[in-house]
Amino acid sequence: LLPQLLLRRRPAPAGAFALLARPASSASGGLPPLTTEIHPGIKRGAFSQLTDADLSAFEAIVGGDHVIKDADEVLSYNIDWLRICRGQGQLVLRPKTTEEVSAIVRHCNKRRLAVVPQGGNTGLVGGSVPLFDEIVISTSRMNSLLSIDPVSGVLVAEAGCVLEQLDREAASQGLMMPLDLGAKGSCQIGGNLATNAGGLRLLRYGSLRGTTLGLEAVLPTGQVLDCLTTLRKDNTGYDIKQLLIGSEGTLGIITKAAILCPARPKSVQLAFLGLDSFQAVLDTYRLARRSLGEILSAFEFIDSESMRAVKQNLGLSCPLGEHSFYVLAETSGSNETHDREKLDGFIESVMSMDGCATDGTVAQDAGQFAHLWSLRERIVESLLVDGYEYKYDVSLPLADIYRLVEHMRTRLDGRVIRTAGYGHLGDGNLHLNFTTPKFDAKVLELIEPHVFDWVRDRRGSVSAEHGLGLKKSQYIRHSKADFAVRVMAEVKRLLDPNGIMNPYKVLPDE
Amino acid sequence: LLPQLLLRRRPAPAGAFALLARPASSASGGLPPLTTEIHPGIKRGAFSQLTDADLSAFEAIVGGDHVIKDADEVLSYNIDWLRICRGQGQLVLRPKTTEEVSAIVRHCNKRRLAVVPQGGNTGLVGGSVPLFDEIVISTSRMNSLLSIDPVSGVLVAEAGCVLEQLDREAASQGLMMPLDLGAKGSCQIGGNLATNAGGLRLLRYGSLRGTTLGLEAVLPTGQVLDCLTTLRKDNTGYDIKQLLIGSEGTLGIITKAAILCPARPKSVQLAFLGLDSFQAVLDTYRLARRSLGEILSAFEFIDSESMRAVKQNLGLSCPLGEHSFYVLAETSGSNETHDREKLDGFIESVMSMDGCATDGTVAQDAGQFAHLWSLRERIVESLLVDGYEYKYDVSLPLADIYRLVEHMRTRLDGRVIRTAGYGHLGDGNLHLNFTTPKFDAKVLELIEPHVFDWVRDRRGSVSAEHGLGLKKSQYIRHSKADFAVRVMAEVKRLLDPNGIMNPYKVLPDE
Repeated sequence: LLPQLLLRRRPAPAGAFALLARPASSASGGLPPLTTEIHPGIKRGAFSQLTDADLSAFEAIVGGDHVIKDADEVLSYNIDWLRICRGQGQLVLRPKTTEEVSAIVRHCNKRRLAVVPQGGNTGLVGGSVPLFDEIVISTSRMNSLLSIDPVSGVLVAEAGCVLEQLDREAASQGLMMPLDLGAKGSCQIGGNLATNAGGLRLLRYGSLRGTTLGLEAVLPTGQVLDCLTTLRKDNTGYDIKQLLIGSEGTLGIITKAAILCPARPKSVQLAFLGLDSFQAVLDTYRLARRSLGEILSAFEFIDSESMRAVKQNLGLSCPLGEHSFYVLAETSGSNETHDREKLDGFIESVMSMDGCATDGTVAQDAGQFAHLWSLRERIVESLLVDGYEYKYDVSLPLADIYRLVEHMRTRLDGRVIRTAGYGHLGDGNLHLNFTTPKFDAKVLELIEPHVFDWVRDRRGSVSAEHGLGLKKSQYIRHSKADFAVRVMAEVKRLLDPNGIMNPYKVLPDE
Repeated sequence: LLPQLLLRRRPAPAGAFALLARPASSASGGLPPLTTEIHPGIKRGAFSQLTDADLSAFEAIVGGDHVIKDADEVLSYNIDWLRICRGQGQLVLRPKTTEEVSAIVRHCNKRRLAVVPQGGNTGLVGGSVPLFDEIVISTSRMNSLLSIDPVSGVLVAEAGCVLEQLDREAASQGLMMPLDLGAKGSCQIGGNLATNAGGLRLLRYGSLRGTTLGLEAVLPTGQVLDCLTTLRKDNTGYDIKQLLIGSEGTLGIITKAAILCPARPKSVQLAFLGLDSFQAVLDTYRLARRSLGEILSAFEFIDSESMRAVKQNLGLSCPLGEHSFYVLAETSGSNETHDREKLDGFIESVMSMDGCATDGTVAQDAGQFAHLWSLRERIVESLLVDGYEYKYDVSLPLADIYRLVEHMRTRLDGRVIRTAGYGHLGDGNLHLNFTTPKFDAKVLELIEPHVFDWVRDRRGSVSAEHGLGLKKSQYIRHSKADFAVRVMAEVKRLLDPNGIMNPYKVLPDE
């Protein structure tokens, strides 16, 4: 199959990124159970109750149109994208400016009213929705692109800008956003930073800790922390903004960010391979690193169960036959001829190596490029169609990655619809998912804490990129030393003395 | 000149990095003045005085051989590499393990004894030497490479490992350290992290904030913060280790680090160009980014005054004639043929563009590669030969970078030996230096705070990569908002309640 394809392939145009599928809204039917029913052990903190005087104060700050009290309208802010959490929030505020966010938070801090910052609400650990009656502060109206400099590559945007839209703006200046993920059509840059989102191209462009040059945030006291520098290098004191990155809204609300955007590649290619063992996936990865070097921009793997889900549940077609594993290897570079030669070399090595890839294709145009990527990006969405999804996101040494999937598949045999494994192989990041027709407490008991213990015993991370949110905060010590958790708690008390900012999340309840 | 060179050039071997010149020790003669004489306004904090009981305690911890009291021997720990600071420390401790560091710091914290962590003592802002009688804790004996994994690229090392040695170890596994700087032969990885060192290849490999996966540190209370994960992705809570990175030893002593090393390039090339205006330097940079794309690994500029210093003061020869500016453009890639073609394309564009480079050469072998790099890397050292060096390290918008040099040259006309400008153009990072035969308070008054004000007015940073240390802490508000400085001070109080850890540095005295 490969040789013919190689002869007639042409790389996808650089603009192809914009064509990637975005997840549709959840396929579920009825309402998910209240989060407090699933987690009866969590008690409401000693926060105040909302009064009419508070409502008047908020109306004075953001205007009546942006104070949402209607129960139906509030509901969508109470339910997370995965539909595994349902909070009891009664109020959503939609500020337009940093000053409005600051005034809201100042009021809430004085009144001891708990709040939850919410961006695109695409988080996967229940971090962006209320648990009890926390007030939702939505950043959706703060969606202006403030500046973009084609020479320095620095983009400055408000927190509510949607990632895909920013990437389109970056494209118009020959740049690209340094991160890309399945939720790009809905997720907001503020939420990306708050969760330190990883995504599909971290392998190449690094983490947001390196590519975020500056940010502005409203701290839990309402004060505005202005670290919005656009300089590539600035060693003037502690990098306080790093505390906000990955704090999942528990240390403040990010309001603006300055991001260093790499040059948009002139040539992008995508190879899709079928393999019959996980060892072959690992061998192919080593070959890719050697042959593709600096132009390798993604290396993703998909197992057969994940592929079946996108085929059966979403009706997507896979251009290859049945295999145990599939790999997407993407290149991004500045010289199409060179990049093609490197990809040809890679594919030749793969095909000539015994027990490596047995089948494969290369995207011929933007449509094929987008289609192949959708097989990977729409897995989460496809699993939701089964009913209820138990979602895990762990880092492990490469050799252990698929052992965990096999181990769990055996453990849950007969009790789940699927045990699906896929993820960012280049980052050692496995996404492990189980599905049942509806929430099943027995299945959950079989999974947790067992899966976290297994990861801890191999010195992995119980959250590679999704964060801890509500769902994993009790397992923080599986991946963080006791004293490090204590320092975290002290930092939280320092910045949020009244504990109003996204309570019940990230830090364990103790 | 160029075409002939192009025909016979061959890229330097990948191992060439290891051949780069290391700065010799300072060329100065007598002792520098006491820092307290230059900064009479700084008063000793309310710390205890060292007693015999303290000495006995330290001897019990590290052994008598590693408690240095001899005044002559202690002297070198009191003087910084630039010889602009001289402290009055009376004691140096040389622990071998994290446990020893912890025991020392625990004792010092209980006894209210101030300490200064010191690595290779190559810092440029007086951050690593005592001011009064702070106890020096040297990490030099903590110099074991703990592990290096050729597949994941993760290197784990103790803080006292010298950067150049780590790079050699990395090379043996097909990897390279993601940072490189002139002081590589002496600087230690712990100090690199503590100062968030940038260096020559940040442009390509990003900052240590992205490439540091884990670290271990002893906090000012003596407690050990273990964040020594080796995972590429780990989103389990706040990234506390980022506070230590760039804290310049004021929040703790880094004892171990896990660094993500990129693959060592198979092909490295270096072009050296002569240009006659700063605009030509900027135009050449834009061409380099376009033609060299993902293989561009350094873009450094040197002005004629800097070049004269290395020629006159160190006797180095420059292969090009007299020019206003020189540029080093380096490529690192995985395919020699492709890299050569890209460099050829770049040089053709440069030569065909009016008013761009007028002269140039390409390194033919490892010796030439090392020699060309030494013209850039030995500038600081060459300026020291003039006598006293006033050293600045700022970030500015590209268009303003050389305006500052010209402005200061006019301002100091007739009062200094040299006003030299060079630096990392790709990062917007200017190194600006002035020399006089010996320290001249009048010259300093003409420079400071004027140079910092000029940078602030253009929204630059008063310290791009060197840090604030002692020399620049009073100017922190030129680049950081008031409230951000207050948060920094609160974090300092939280982690170092007795203020024993590297006092008088980074945070302004107030």
